[in-house]
Order: sequence, then structure tokens, then C-alpha cells
Amino acid sequence: MIKIVVIGSGNVAKHLVEALSQASSIELLQVFARQKSSVENWIASHKIISNFDQLADADVYIIAVSDAAIAEVSAQIPFEKKLVVHTSGTVAFTEIDPKNQRGVWYPLQTFSKNKNVDFSEIPFCLESEFAEDYPLLEKLTESLNATHYLINGEQRKALHLAAVFVNNFTNHLYQMGKEICDENLVPFEILKPLIAETSNKIKNLSPLEAQTGPAKRQDIATINRHLEMLSDENKKSIYQLLTQSIQKTNVKKL
Amino acid sequence: MIKIVVIGSGNVAKHLVEALSQASSIELLQVFARQKSSVENWIASHKIISNFDQLADADVYIIAVSDAAIAEVSAQIPFEKKLVVHTSGTVAFTEIDPKNQRGVWYPLQTFSKNKNVDFSEIPFCLESEFAEDYPLLEKLTESLNATHYLINGEQRKALHLAAVFVNNFTNHLYQMGKEICDENLVPFEILKPLIAETSNKIKNLSPLEAQTGPAKRQDIATINRHLEMLSDENKKSIYQLLTQSIQKTNVKKL
Repeated sequence: MIKIVVIGSGNVAKHLVEALSQASSIELLQVFARQKSSVENWIASHKIISNFDQLADADVYIIAVSDAAIAEVSAQIPFEKKLVVHTSGTVAFTEIDPKNQRGVWYPLQTFSKNKNVDFSEIPFCLESEFAEDYPLLEKLTESLNATHYLINGEQRKALHLAAVFVNNFTNHLYQMGKEICDENLVPFEILKPLIAETSNKIKNLSPLEAQTGPAKRQDIATINRHLEMLSDENKKSIYQLLTQSIQKTNVKKL
Repeated sequence: MIKIVVIGSGNVAKHLVEALSQASSIELLQVFARQKSSVENWIASHKIISNFDQLADADVYIIAVSDAAIAEVSAQIPFEKKLVVHTSGTVAFTEIDPKNQRGVWYPLQTFSKNKNVDFSEIPFCLESEFAEDYPLLEKLTESLNATHYLINGEQRKALHLAAVFVNNFTNHLYQMGKEICDENLVPFEILKPLIAETSNKIKNLSPLEAQTGPAKRQDIATINRHLEMLSDENKKSIYQLLTQSIQKTNVKKL
């Protein structure tokens, strides 16, 4: 059994605690939360602590707090030479207090408060200060049936940046699509199968192979008609910039 | 039985022919293709015609050709007062020759050459010049177990524009994510579960509710770090514009 303590009470902490509680090879000893009430729904109350002096002796301490709080929280752990990892995509493991053996256990996924997560679908990016700690991070990940990759700090930052493009920016394009539907009294529902298929295609085709549309086929008449339809200057700028970018990419790469 | 002729040999025609051939309430009489060889793999050769004089008497003629060819093709149909529809998202039904009764049967989906399509997942946008023809377009759609919506020409153009945002532009963001991965020797595979989940969220949350990331939470430090990491000016411009747009949208709407 791998003995675990989770420090944090946010979205990522919640989903990790739920998954770790159910893993047969994991013993979840404690959850640290400054306000006990914030985690009472996910874990038995005797396992909740809000004072670092109460921290139990564990194999891994998982710090799942906001990026800005990682350093401070790690400094308050009253142990030395323990394996302490954070779950952030952007923070270097060196932000963790050096009295412990440091690492990263970063689940690359978007977590929503009220939506269950299937951890077997989540890739974890692993990094450890000392090679001897790496196998334990692998085992921890495998206990959730999740996949893991050895990813160094620079690569992890790049992945986080790429994730902003494919997740945050993509979702904003859905928002623009919805606004165009709303303005024209068309149900956004109609676009949902297209949204699903667009992401589905990527499972088997490269984005370059999957690219379609007026920009890809240099259909200037349609592009100009679309630009005329867009009265909102912000949407017009985004349409122009992304159209130019597709045109350049496809000329360059094909 | 609804008697159908499909005119066209492209991607949309192919998928429609495959689906219509299997529908129990449809009799697919003929497929018109200028080059017989282009459609020989999808339909029995005695049903392929390449001369408009050979067109059989059908209930609906479906023109599934490029937007620019719709008017010319429709003029060559040697019948009058027949129901003739096109499958385009952007062309008005009035582009079809007025000697026939005109309409639109637009499947809002992205079709790939070598990927099967589940028509029960596809919304069709329907429009007919004469009200009397509308029920037949409904029946035609229902024969494929697909859903249908009454959508006028202006709405259809808006949907097509919205589709460029949620499909073509989204796919291009996947391409940028892949380029960032490639440059940092990280497998693009790692991002695929995130891409799937981002589109999946939209089934139950509005895009505004689903929005996350540094722009949404006004995390200026992360935004600046990302901008420093982007050496490619094109990606940097897209990052800035979409970040500003998310910031504006979320301030405005929440």
C-alpha cells in the first residue's frame, strides 16, 4: 500500500481524493484543508486536518493547491527527506522546499467541479528530483489506471502552453460559435455534433490532414462573405488572423 | 418509398449515397457523376449515369456538388416542377434553376473521405421554396434517422460561419498545439484526452460556464510567461488576441 496525504481543497484535489480513495493499492491517510468544511463532502471527517503539526507519516505528500501557494505550503511540512510532489503544469519542482525530495505529478486534464473524471483517460506528467523516487510516482499513477510520461520541467511548461491552445482557446471558439447562433436565433445544439466530430477526427488524423474549410481551400469568395457578415470587430479580427494562419500553415507544410 | 437521384461525386455525395442506399424507405435510383470511375466503388455500375438525358423520374434530386457548380448543374436537369435540393451551407436555394421546386438539405457535419459517418448524429438544415415540399424533406431526413431543423437561408449562412469557428479554427488550434509539442519533443498524444474532454464538456455546460485557463482567471503572470515562450510571431498574435477576447467576454458576460 502506498500511503498518501493530499494537501489542498480545490478542484484538482477533490478529483484526486475521490480517485485515490477508491484505488486498492493506495491508503489515503489524510486530506489537509485550511477550512474543514470545504472537503467534508469528499472524505471521512477524521481524515481531515487543518494544522500541519497533525500531518501523518506518509510515502507521498501531494500538494494540489494554486501555483502561487505551492512554495509556502511545502515549507510548512514538518518533515524532511520525504517525497513531496505538486500537481501543477507550470511550476518547477524547485519551488518546493528543498528539505524534502521533490517531484511533479501533473494530471494533464481539465477538471470541472460537478463532472466525474475517468482517470484511466488521463495522462500524468511525472518528474522527480531523485531517480530513486520515480518508480513510486509510476506506481501511484498506475494505481489509478492512468498513463504516465517522463516529462521534464521545460517540456511540461510547453505542454501547459499547448493545452491553452487546444483547450482554453478552443472553448472560446465554441463561445463565438454560440454567440453567432444566438444572434441569428439558431439553436447552438445544431453545432454540437460538429464539435464532437472535430475533436474525434484528431484521434486518427493529424490536425494538418484533418484541416478543412474556406481558408484551407483558398476560397476567397466565402472568406470575404464571412468577413462582411461579422459586424463584431473582435470576431472579425479573430476570423482574419486564424484564416491567414491556416493559409500560411497549409502552404508551408503541404 | 422515396425515389432519389444524387448528383455529385465528392465527399458529401459519397457519404449520402452510402447512407441512402441502406435506408429502407429510400429507393436510390441513380448517381450522376461526370466520370463514372469516381463513384464505381460506392454504387452498382448500372445506377451510374453521366449524361443528364438519362436522368430517371424521381421524387427528389439531391445536388451534392461544389457551391460554384450548383446553378449550372441545376439548369441541366431536363425536368420541371420537380423537387430539387442542394446540400450547401452557404448557397441560397434561389441559385437552383427556377424551373423546378427548390430547397436545401444541408447536413451540418464535417465529412472525411475515409471515415464512416453515423447519420443519426447529424443535424440537417431544411428549407423549401414551397411549403408542400417540406414534409418530404423531413421524411427523407428521418429515413436516415437524422434530426432536422427548419433553417432559413440567412440562418444557414450564420450556422456555416459559426461552423468555421468551432470546426476549422478549432482544428487549427489543435495544429498549433501539435507544433508546440513537436518543438519540445513531447508526444502530441498527451493532449488528446484533453481535446476530447474539452469538446465533451460542451454537451452539458455552456461555453461560458466551461471556460477555464489563465485568461479567464486574469492570471497575468502565466500569460506573460506564455508570451515569452512563444518565439513564433503568428502564434504569439493568436495567443494575445484570443486571450484579450476571453478577458473581454468574461468580464462582459459574468
